Amino acid sequence: MRRIVTLTTDFGVSDNFIGVMKGVILNIAPDAAIVDLTHGIPPQNVIAGALALESAVDFFPRGAIHVGVVDPGVGTDRRPIALSTERAIYVGPDNGLFDLALRRTPLRQAVHLTNTSMFRSPVSATFHGRDIFASVGGHLVAGVPFRSLGDPIDTLVKLDIPEPMYEADALRLQVIAADRFGNLVTNLERARLESWAAEPNNVVVHIRGREVRIHRTYADVGPGDLVAYVGSGGRLEIGVNGGSALEALGAVIGDDVILRRGGLFPANLP
Amino acid sequence: MRRIVTLTTDFGVSDNFIGVMKGVILNIAPDAAIVDLTHGIPPQNVIAGALALESAVDFFPRGAIHVGVVDPGVGTDRRPIALSTERAIYVGPDNGLFDLALRRTPLRQAVHLTNTSMFRSPVSATFHGRDIFASVGGHLVAGVPFRSLGDPIDTLVKLDIPEPMYEADALRLQVIAADRFGNLVTNLERARLESWAAEPNNVVVHIRGREVRIHRTYADVGPGDLVAYVGSGGRLEIGVNGGSALEALGAVIGDDVILRRGGLFPANLP
Amino acid sequence: MRRIVTLTTDFGVSDNFIGVMKGVILNIAPDAAIVDLTHGIPPQNVIAGALALESAVDFFPRGAIHVGVVDPGVGTDRRPIALSTERAIYVGPDNGLFDLALRRTPLRQAVHLTNTSMFRSPVSATFHGRDIFASVGGHLVAGVPFRSLGDPIDTLVKLDIPEPMYEADALRLQVIAADRFGNLVTNLERARLESWAAEPNNVVVHIRGREVRIHRTYADVGPGDLVAYVGSGGRLEIGVNGGSALEALGAVIGDDVILRRGGLFPANLP
Repeated sequence: MRRIVTLTTDFGVSDNFIGVMKGVILNIAPDAAIVDLTHGIPPQNVIAGALALESAVDFFPRGAIHVGVVDPGVGTDRRPIALSTERAIYVGPDNGLFDLALRRTPLRQAVHLTNTSMFRSPVSATFHGRDIFASVGGHLVAGVPFRSLGDPIDTLVKLDIPEPMYEADALRLQVIAADRFGNLVTNLERARLESWAAEPNNVVVHIRGREVRIHRTYADVGPGDLVAYVGSGGRLEIGVNGGSALEALGAVIGDDVILRRGGLFPANLP
Repeated sequence: MRRIVTLTTDFGVSDNFIGVMKGVILNIAPDAAIVDLTHGIPPQNVIAGALALESAVDFFPRGAIHVGVVDPGVGTDRRPIALSTERAIYVGPDNGLFDLALRRTPLRQAVHLTNTSMFRSPVSATFHGRDIFASVGGHLVAGVPFRSLGDPIDTLVKLDIPEPMYEADALRLQVIAADRFGNLVTNLERARLESWAAEPNNVVVHIRGREVRIHRTYADVGPGDLVAYVGSGGRLEIGVNGGSALEALGAVIGDDVILRRGGLFPANLP
Repeated sequence: MRRIVTLTTDFGVSDNFIGVMKGVILNIAPDAAIVDLTHGIPPQNVIAGALALESAVDFFPRGAIHVGVVDPGVGTDRRPIALSTERAIYVGPDNGLFDLALRRTPLRQAVHLTNTSMFRSPVSATFHGRDIFASVGGHLVAGVPFRSLGDPIDTLVKLDIPEPMYEADALRLQVIAADRFGNLVTNLERARLESWAAEPNNVVVHIRGREVRIHRTYADVGPGDLVAYVGSGGRLEIGVNGGSALEALGAVIGDDVILRRGGLFPANLP
């Protein structure tokens, strides 16, 4: 069975960076099945990269190798690492990029990539995606044992992501990403929403001066109307049926989103 | 021989949606050969999706599975379907997306995807591309029989696309799409053009107050000049040699294009 | 071992052109491993295409087939060609697109693609990428001998790229490309830089009225600072640590870049 390597980067698709990384992998492991997870992460936005991995890795076959390169620290002394879980292997910089994925399936082993025989030589100072991460990914596909990649490590850099804040009768969230359709992704996961509000459809979502109700999907509101829902990635999102919440609200990443239990507003319920 | 699954969506390439769909397919059918047909369909533009499929499917090997997700009705009661022809299998929403491809190779069987054991569980309310269509595509690659996917159906939703209108001495068309180079695609297919005008190079094409002649290709006119031609997708197009007709004309989708047989203008012929 | 075909075009990813080319290849060679090198070459920019190939081909396995379609002359009498080197095979238009790659590994054989049985039929006047170049690439994967593709030729069209100009005590370069991060790529290769300046970190780079020093990488200067460095593609580049040199300088392709040996400015050295 062909082994899968996914690539998640902020390299975009206008240059040849991704194609070159694939050449490096295929040079080492000609039968690798390479999948672009996405290359549209906003430049150097580690949180967006972590979200892209979080909402994807459970859908890949067990044993997939996820190479992630959102790496503002390239060329500094940030460590190149590989991480192993029961489901997957992660290869990339030690900057929190794999942190959200690890909340789903706990870490088993972590190594600092110190075995330079697994790198291309010489290593470019600006393109570790090619010379370190793709190369290590290729060697993993080719059967190199995980432990031979470097020295075990105990601590990892944590992702710098805002946590939901519990207030008296409210939950204070933030918009942490937006997708191609202008849907706004918050820092609230389904399980936390459901433990905070027994009846989510009774919650009022406040954002940019507007009040929005939580439904199952866009189609539950009228065309052009705002709607909150748990998105396919497992987080509370705010969207517009047939439109863009990003544009409709003039929202930006970092915007506050306040949730209030809606007992006071039963008349407004659908 | 590896079986091919193509993906045609309006998901763009900035998010991880496509990567996740590929994970779902490879989880079921590890040897699938997955090809991106395009993910640049303008959001919810079913006509553009139908055109992308129409001009592509004949170039793929017989038996290819084309998964299409341009699906403004996701979350409503529009039916998920699969269609089978002598050449290919189509999987996606019942909204006309496959209508133009079916004009080339007639429908053999159609099913409403009611066999939920072919879906991922649970099915997200917003991402049927992942939980229904990619999953069904993967199962088809893995050898699940077409008929087992659901209940046979007799009627399909038709594509809402304008037809050419025959007038006294003219043919009234519309611009229905534009490509990356700013070439304008009309709703006139080669066969209809040739049956209407015995000598296409004697036809005058009127658009946005300009008169354009039909040639074999851009290079038959001077740099920067407008030209009409039958594009590689088999439809009459209007372009600019070395430029963008979209910009040069300030054209928009839906613009009228009038064809007149050019007997009165022989002096202008090349 | 699966044989690799890479694709380098200016087709973008919004249309189905690339997907269709892959269908053509897989129709002929179902086991081909197809890799997108990049489709983000600016329309008709042959120099940018040549740079994308130059900095990529050495990373692919020996024997890879590189199909390149940046082809402003499609539909004219420019020749379709295939080129063979010890490392790779190139297929595309005879317009200099492969010129920079050939500087790395010398040409062994060149043919004018005259064997039309290797093309799709009929050949569209506007889409040789599909009907000639992808088709020939597929036949090469399937084992067709290189020599059977057409008639040997002795001369190739040269790439129209500016050369560095040696002046009294300076080296006059040009910006010839920019990448997704706004890094500016010059026409100076590492070997030439090192033979001109024994100590590159003693060179002053003049661009748009600014003076920039050559370092190993972005991280060697402060955030937001300009820096010159030899990029991962092997050419002198000008960038900004954590930013875009394109924007910071208001630079454009074709801008002059003057290098002066820095003996007069030792006090400025880092």
